[in-house]
This record gives sequence, C-alpha cells and structure tokens, in this order.
Amino acid sequence: MSKTIFVNGRFLPAATPAILASDRGFTLGDGLFETMRASGGRIWYLPLHMGRLARGAAVLKIPVNVESLARAIVRTLAANDLMQAEATVRVTLSRGRSTRGLTLPEKPKPTLVISVDNFAPYPDALYQTGMSAVVLPQRRNEFALTASLKSLNYLEGVLGKDQAAAAGAHEGIFLNTQGFLAEACTANLFFVKDKVLHTPAVNCGLVPGVMRHTALKMARAGEIPVVEGKYKASTLFAGDEAFLTNVLMGVMPLTRVDGQPIGGGQPGPLTMRLLSKLKR
Amino acid sequence: MSKTIFVNGRFLPAATPAILASDRGFTLGDGLFETMRASGGRIWYLPLHMGRLARGAAVLKIPVNVESLARAIVRTLAANDLMQAEATVRVTLSRGRSTRGLTLPEKPKPTLVISVDNFAPYPDALYQTGMSAVVLPQRRNEFALTASLKSLNYLEGVLGKDQAAAAGAHEGIFLNTQGFLAEACTANLFFVKDKVLHTPAVNCGLVPGVMRHTALKMARAGEIPVVEGKYKASTLFAGDEAFLTNVLMGVMPLTRVDGQPIGGGQPGPLTMRLLSKLKR
Repeated sequence: MSKTIFVNGRFLPAATPAILASDRGFTLGDGLFETMRASGGRIWYLPLHMGRLARGAAVLKIPVNVESLARAIVRTLAANDLMQAEATVRVTLSRGRSTRGLTLPEKPKPTLVISVDNFAPYPDALYQTGMSAVVLPQRRNEFALTASLKSLNYLEGVLGKDQAAAAGAHEGIFLNTQGFLAEACTANLFFVKDKVLHTPAVNCGLVPGVMRHTALKMARAGEIPVVEGKYKASTLFAGDEAFLTNVLMGVMPLTRVDGQPIGGGQPGPLTMRLLSKLKR
Repeated sequence: MSKTIFVNGRFLPAATPAILASDRGFTLGDGLFETMRASGGRIWYLPLHMGRLARGAAVLKIPVNVESLARAIVRTLAANDLMQAEATVRVTLSRGRSTRGLTLPEKPKPTLVISVDNFAPYPDALYQTGMSAVVLPQRRNEFALTASLKSLNYLEGVLGKDQAAAAGAHEGIFLNTQGFLAEACTANLFFVKDKVLHTPAVNCGLVPGVMRHTALKMARAGEIPVVEGKYKASTLFAGDEAFLTNVLMGVMPLTRVDGQPIGGGQPGPLTMRLLSKLKR
C-alpha cells in the first residue's frame, strides 16, 4: 500500500482520511480513474493514459490539467521510494464536493488523488498456462453514456469478478445487451481465428484499454490482420487462441472459458508472438 | 449542509475529510445509499428505507446493522439541531477500504456515513404547474445486477439530469435497452390511462422507490386499478395524466415531456387525489 498519497497538490499519509464525505466521487461515483504501471520512475504509456483521462474528463465536464498530473505522479513515486522499483499508479479524479442532489456544481473543485504501490509482475507460470474465464449472465450496457469511460462506476465489475472467483476462474467476460462480447472485468478480450486477430469493437460496450491499443498497434506493425467487430460468445469458443490485455499483465493467454479449452487449452502462437515483443 | 456528520460511530465536522482515498466507495462506487426525509426528528418510511438498504447490502455482501443505524440517524439529526425541523437524511454505506483491484476484502470494514440537511419542501406552485421532462437518448441497463439497487454508481443519473437541465426540463426519463420506460433520474414514473394507474415494472431497470411503493399502496387502498408493466414512451405521451415520485417531493405532477403536454398539460385528477392524501 501507498504510504503517502497525493491529494490536490498535497502529500498526505495514506492511512489518513483525505476525502470529504460529500465528495461526489464517494456519493455518486462521479469521476474517473486510471491505473498505470511504472518502472524505475518512468510511467508506461503515459500519453495514452493522460489522453484517455482528458477525453473522459471532457465528457464529464471535470476540469483536469494532465501536464501537471504527470509531474505529480513522478513526485508521488519519489515520495514512496518507488523511483527504482516496479510500481502501480492509480489516479482518481472526482468532481469534488457538492451539496445534495445531482446538479453539477457551478464551480467544481475536483478531487485528484494519486496513490502508488509496489508491483509484482504476474508470475511466468501464469503466462505459460494462461488464465481461465467464465461468461457472466448479466450484461454490459453498450448504450450508456459512460460505457467507454473509465469511470468510478465499477460495481458491475466488482460483482463480475466475484462471480468469476466463485466459479474458480480468473476473469468474468461480459456480453452486451445485444448478446455480443464486450470485455472482461479488468481486461480487454482478443481471439484469433484463421490467423486473423479479432477484438470487440469499442461500440460493443467496453473501455478501450491502453494495452488493447498497444496490442492492436503491435499486430498491425507485424502485418497481422486485425478486425474490430461484433462477436457472439460462440465465436470465442471456436477461436484458435485467445488472450486478455491490460497494462499490468500486458498480453495474457486465455486458455479456458466456461471450463472449455480455447485452441488446445494452451497459449497460442500469435499470443506468444505478441507477448514476446512486449517488455514485461 | 450538515455541520456534523456521523462516520462509523463517530461524529465529525462535515468540512473535515472523513473518507480514506482507498475506500471502495470512492475508488469503485462499491456501496449503496438512501435518501430520506425527516420531520421533527421522525424519519418518514424508515422501515422501507432500512429494508431496501439491508436487501441491497445482502446482494453486495456488505455487513450492515439497520437497527443501530436508525438510532444513529436520530442522533445525527440531534447533533445538527434538526430535531424540530424538516430535514433530509443521506446514508451512505460503502464496502470500506481495500488494496488495489476488485477482489472483495476477506474481512470488510464498511464505511457508514450519515449526513443531514435542512429541507425546504418543494413550492406549491410547482405542484400546481407540474414538472417537465425529456426522454433521454442513452439507455438504462435492465440486465445489470445493480439495476434495482440504490448503488453509488450514479453517474448515468448525473449525466441524465445535466442533459435534462440543458434542455430546460426538470427531469430526464430513461428507456431501458429494450426501449421500454424505466424511470427518471431521481424519481419513479407513473401515468394514468382510462382511470388505470400504470408504472414500469421493477424488471424494466429501475430502483423501486419508497414513494413508488407508497403511491401503489395508496392507489390500491383507494380501489384505483394498478398495472406494473412494460411501456413504450408513446404510451406515456398518450396518457391522460402522469406523475413522478420520490420521498422528497412525494407525488409530483408531470405535465410536459419532450415539450409535449401530457393530458392537457395540467395535473390530472388522480394525481391530485393521491397528492391530497399525502402529508407534505
């Protein structure tokens, strides 16, 4: 756990309450977040994270200065003696306090929190066996204004992850309300069929991940054909291989869904090729 | 604004940070809330509120003791010199702090916050003209596990209310992903057609409000036929009268939707009959 957190320009002990009970992040989930990885004081994919945060903040009309935020992240790593370490970084941006009700405050005073932690990369053994997932019964809403935002409304993901754990799986996969694949609780989803890489299109109701973007870019650079489309779960089960992506695990083989092996239940060749190109 | 808030058994100044930045209410919207009305130290519909909170907490696996909570609410009113006044009460229950990620903490230490405010009942003039609403373009997800929970994931409501305000309307009405009426951002929806009272069924993707329950009970006691069903927006436009309900406004005539008058644009007779039976 972070020893010291950054809250609106000040460094505070993480164990000290720092948020007003009237903060709309706490009362309404009215805000956004980013989870990043840092190595030796450098933040991976920083421009992509900052770009997504800035776009989300514009949609929600929450003022944010991403240039000063980037500097504050490095200062927070330093304040926690993590400048030489592997670390995770969480930025939380809320609309800040307001009176009761939903009406937006005329002059919002957003709350910006940065917390950092030691990060232990996922074990090699997991990349060799791959992760398991279950397809969740509840649905992701591709028609929500917040569908593609990394918002603080994460309760569906919390419940999905808990259901996956109860089923003995690592991850839960959401279909959207039309029955098309969307994403996993904490990762984007890819599969390969006949040497073509497929991933659900953003309008399927997913948060377009930084690692999703990176995997697509790597695939295109390697002349691997890529399709972003609408897919039923049956397409995933019929895939030759599959993987999950997020910035903490990079490219993670997905070898079993609902107890059924994907491909032969082993990480596939295209997955391994992308994985080998990623620094970890 | 509350001068003094109740946080996990202690009274604190409302202007003092009381919530950890690692509280899952703040980081993930992982929790529930209730908004209540109190008059002269008595909380309206307390058992209904406590019942809904307890049911939601069971779904989310967050421990809560609603008996001691009821006592704490009264103590919070007293601490704010609101025992003789009209007041609003907000209870926020989150899963409390955890380390990074979605996994549920093994031994959760929930955060329970009570804040109270002076309440000015809505002006009589508004009950005489009624409220206006717009039908929102985005959709409510009736297939979410959280659809009927009064959860801290309220960002869609925030955005909907802002859109309504931008359109010059009091409220925004959500359709669900199948195109059926669900509810307004902060109220449940009713309409009358041929002397029958209609309201969207709970499985349409709505939070079953305490005042919705009360209005249905009053209607049935008054031998008004009631149907909870699935309705297209066109049914609302063709209604003889309509109203909105929540515990702060009670029964509020809805006289205009998308700029079109509902039933002549005046509060209807059944609406006024229910309204006259409610203490305000």
